[in-house]
Amino acid sequence: MANLSMNFYLDLPEWATEFVSKLPEHIPSIEDRMRLIHDLANLNFRSNTGGPFAAGVFESESGRIVSIGVNRVMSRNCSSAHAEIMAISLAQKNLGVYDLGGNGMPKHDLVVNWLPCAMCFGALLWSGCKRLVIAGNGPELEEITTFDEGPRPENWEEELRKRGIETLNNILRHEAIATFEGFRQANKIVYNARQST
Amino acid sequence: MANLSMNFYLDLPEWATEFVSKLPEHIPSIEDRMRLIHDLANLNFRSNTGGPFAAGVFESESGRIVSIGVNRVMSRNCSSAHAEIMAISLAQKNLGVYDLGGNGMPKHDLVVNWLPCAMCFGALLWSGCKRLVIAGNGPELEEITTFDEGPRPENWEEELRKRGIETLNNILRHEAIATFEGFRQANKIVYNARQST
Repeated sequence: MANLSMNFYLDLPEWATEFVSKLPEHIPSIEDRMRLIHDLANLNFRSNTGGPFAAGVFESESGRIVSIGVNRVMSRNCSSAHAEIMAISLAQKNLGVYDLGGNGMPKHDLVVNWLPCAMCFGALLWSGCKRLVIAGNGPELEEITTFDEGPRPENWEEELRKRGIETLNNILRHEAIATFEGFRQANKIVYNARQST
Repeated sequence: MANLSMNFYLDLPEWATEFVSKLPEHIPSIEDRMRLIHDLANLNFRSNTGGPFAAGVFESESGRIVSIGVNRVMSRNCSSAHAEIMAISLAQKNLGVYDLGGNGMPKHDLVVNWLPCAMCFGALLWSGCKRLVIAGNGPELEEITTFDEGPRPENWEEELRKRGIETLNNILRHEAIATFEGFRQANKIVYNARQST
């Protein structure tokens, strides 16, 4: 008889509980929402609880915070535990829905500190979020951190638009680059998703 | 103060516990591994516990079963709970690693009843699995079920190969189509990831 795991559990780091307790219910300014995401990304790698990536789901209009997420891959032995998957899953749990864009729902933003990787780009499509807010896109992330982001469609903005998802780009871009450079300087060993290829 | 979820939990359906208790430790034949996945996909939608998709992680050489997964999106309110994400996460929990292809690990297969969607294609890249075994690819899945599979790279086999992942395609393809047709016939309401677009 096979001895298999039948369930799994993913959580935010311990420090996130205190962090969240100090957050307001709403963050009206887009820049302030991104500033929160940059703070989380920095805290995450500096606390050794994951990579330099954070995400959050907000109500687009009111700025109500619905969830936050940070990268938990290495600390929770789960290669899918990227910040975006954490934030989307926690938002859906919080609201009791699998579609954040379902009938009667307010419009939701996914706010991330860079263009999502190939996996998380797909996760965004299925999440129901109606707007992607990012600090930037381009080769800087891969160049600075050496992470492989995977093959995303070249016309990624159009693929999002086709599915009713707008993009807001270059929000506090400089601060995103500073996070990745800080991560690179703090880490002598460069993480790689695939250790042996 | 924001009231946010700090963790989430995903599980296989109740029927899977009994199903797993009857499985052997190893399934040497590739066709028999796929037959198991087709059985799971059928059981899942017929039991109303998720969509017609299943996946499993196996040791490539020995056929040892490391995990199984089925789609849990609607039953667990989690748009990322696709069969592949479930199987990969459960395999990594079972073995206590975030990289199923890490140093000293045997080679692992991800076995799925169709080419993974855009999100799960990315999840495969980060999983450490060294071989993708699928029943098929092509427009049949989207045509029969009306699911949107998202933008995957046209040269998907090459993108996998570049990252050290082989593909074995067309294993019990006819049976996969039969599953999707059975799903279509059984469901009057067609599921859509985005209810309002």
